[in-house]
Amino acid sequence: MKNLAILGSTGSIGQSALAVVDAHPGRLRVAALAAGDNAALLAEQVARYCPAVVGMATAEGADRLRQACGANAPTIVGGAEGLVAVATHPPVDIVICASAGTAGLEAVLAAIDAGKTVALANKEVLVMAGALVTEAARRKGVAILPVDSEHNAIHQCLHGRDRREIRRLILTASGGPFRELPADALEKVDADAALRHPTWRMGRKITIDSATLMNKGLEVIEAHWLFGVSADQIDVVIHPQSIVHSMVELTDGSVIAQLGVTDMRLPIQYACSYPERWEAALPPLDLTRAGRLEFHAPARDRFPCLDLAYRALRTGGTLPVVLNAANEIAVDAFLDGKLGFTAIPRVIEKAIGAHDVENVTTLEIVRRVDAWARDCARDAAQALELSA
Amino acid sequence: MKNLAILGSTGSIGQSALAVVDAHPGRLRVAALAAGDNAALLAEQVARYCPAVVGMATAEGADRLRQACGANAPTIVGGAEGLVAVATHPPVDIVICASAGTAGLEAVLAAIDAGKTVALANKEVLVMAGALVTEAARRKGVAILPVDSEHNAIHQCLHGRDRREIRRLILTASGGPFRELPADALEKVDADAALRHPTWRMGRKITIDSATLMNKGLEVIEAHWLFGVSADQIDVVIHPQSIVHSMVELTDGSVIAQLGVTDMRLPIQYACSYPERWEAALPPLDLTRAGRLEFHAPARDRFPCLDLAYRALRTGGTLPVVLNAANEIAVDAFLDGKLGFTAIPRVIEKAIGAHDVENVTTLEIVRRVDAWARDCARDAAQALELSA
Repeated sequence: MKNLAILGSTGSIGQSALAVVDAHPGRLRVAALAAGDNAALLAEQVARYCPAVVGMATAEGADRLRQACGANAPTIVGGAEGLVAVATHPPVDIVICASAGTAGLEAVLAAIDAGKTVALANKEVLVMAGALVTEAARRKGVAILPVDSEHNAIHQCLHGRDRREIRRLILTASGGPFRELPADALEKVDADAALRHPTWRMGRKITIDSATLMNKGLEVIEAHWLFGVSADQIDVVIHPQSIVHSMVELTDGSVIAQLGVTDMRLPIQYACSYPERWEAALPPLDLTRAGRLEFHAPARDRFPCLDLAYRALRTGGTLPVVLNAANEIAVDAFLDGKLGFTAIPRVIEKAIGAHDVENVTTLEIVRRVDAWARDCARDAAQALELSA
Repeated sequence: MKNLAILGSTGSIGQSALAVVDAHPGRLRVAALAAGDNAALLAEQVARYCPAVVGMATAEGADRLRQACGANAPTIVGGAEGLVAVATHPPVDIVICASAGTAGLEAVLAAIDAGKTVALANKEVLVMAGALVTEAARRKGVAILPVDSEHNAIHQCLHGRDRREIRRLILTASGGPFRELPADALEKVDADAALRHPTWRMGRKITIDSATLMNKGLEVIEAHWLFGVSADQIDVVIHPQSIVHSMVELTDGSVIAQLGVTDMRLPIQYACSYPERWEAALPPLDLTRAGRLEFHAPARDRFPCLDLAYRALRTGGTLPVVLNAANEIAVDAFLDGKLGFTAIPRVIEKAIGAHDVENVTTLEIVRRVDAWARDCARDAAQALELSA
């Protein structure tokens, strides 16, 4: 029996993680949960899974949760401390990290320090502080298992192989909704067009990142830290069908790929079961019904965010922190209708260009540079604001 | 440094194996060679690679080789003994078996008995005597490494995984030249149409087997013995682009695939380098230039050879021996213009139906049943002969 802590249990990944627990009651148990703001749903989860420790992002949220839970409330901790308490709860074996921002990063570092296996579903953790996180994991002998479907695929492809066999990682990207749109049409794209599935906040951000290819750029940086390969060894290929989740080219030119249905329960279960592999009650992939699989080179000129991410990775230090923060500000401004789609990379480029790179040696440096980059990007976005 | 013996060194696989030796002079050395009839080419190989022992299929061929080699001739042995002498030459580490028929089978059994690693490029060995060969390999602790691109792909996909993780093996097939031909047109197909690349003898046989899907059927049987999975766990999918060489579906539904350029030097090198993996100086696979990858279910009604092979595997014992022998006779008759394309499976079905199945406990049984099946198939082919 493995004890789980889920950071971000009310979000999409968190709910999928609980579905994996439901499917394997004899193997997985929920020991601790943390959420951002959704006290009502978290109270339901508490009633169902009986975690011993529960965290809410704010003290006010923790109060709401206490009220919702009533007499049978477990230990409830509010604020960043709550996330850390959940991540370090002694009986926990695996921490599934799906909560955003620097709070998630702090909790992951605490989990590693407490010797927990980390199942990582949050790109920012490694983009912002890959050096800190991987060094801490190495020191503690802790495994970081990727839940992102691309990195999870690569982890599966590499299983049991000597890392020196890697010639190249090939991350697949759907290409987003504007894959075939010419450059002049991209100028006029608005948030409604970019959001094919306008659902919750996190979904909106990732949907835009997918349309700009920044999502893939962040994954390139994440892959560097997870698998210890250089930027030159990581390629991106557009694969609109999203059936091949990613690939590894080995030294002899042989390519190993992982394919599957698109359901986040699979990578989450993989991380929970590792090094074992359990049955999953999902419909299998039927390639004869999948139609044709296509692969294209990304249009780097029309989607410059990808190369901005490569540039940040190659320079290293705090530049990926700036990339990530400036991107968040630019995407926010785009979603608010204040910034054009093609201005997103221009805002990021301004912030990157203005930054004096430092080494990432402490969490404090990450926090300071993150705040600086947000201010810098806000100014840049204002200067480029749409005169609608 | 690994010492190689190559059975069938003048054939296509043998020549590719020597090209692999050329590419890795510090890692591979040719210690022994055997060929069927081509004394002139074998003499050139002897001069270049200086093997200590050389075999020719016949005593007469051995004499021709001695003449061609002149004063510097190595030890040359003619007949089936020659193949065995090459396969068991003491300094040899790896025996690459690419020679056809029961002689190849005997040599493989001798190589296993002598503790050599076997790189297997000859389907018949496992189709005819999978039980004998795998039991001998288990007893001696000897590895059988598949060189056939499909099985080599599966070997790569399974690397380091627990066999209990396998839900299903998925062998890919190009589908052959008549993949889309309707049933009535198949009746009228002749050898010239079936042989897109009419080159050497072995190539002709395999080209027809590819057109009837019998090649894939034989591979299903081979996969059963190599990977210890039942017929129900082996599927075939038509993939005309031949870029995905084969796949493994794991217990959670995840699919691991091996992709690559179509060059036999890669699986041969893999078998020679295993468990290491070496650099190969071949152009890498470029998926963005590969076009679309398609996958279809095989048309089992139009290509009944596939299900005949499944039937032989499910029944087991000597039935695959009959399948293999009857197929060879039927394909010969088709190539000679004496039998129609759609009569090939009918000949095989006659022989299968007439056979009293025995267990394969000795090489003698295999030889006897093989001879019986050839006679039986000849009679069946005569009865169905084209009245042209």
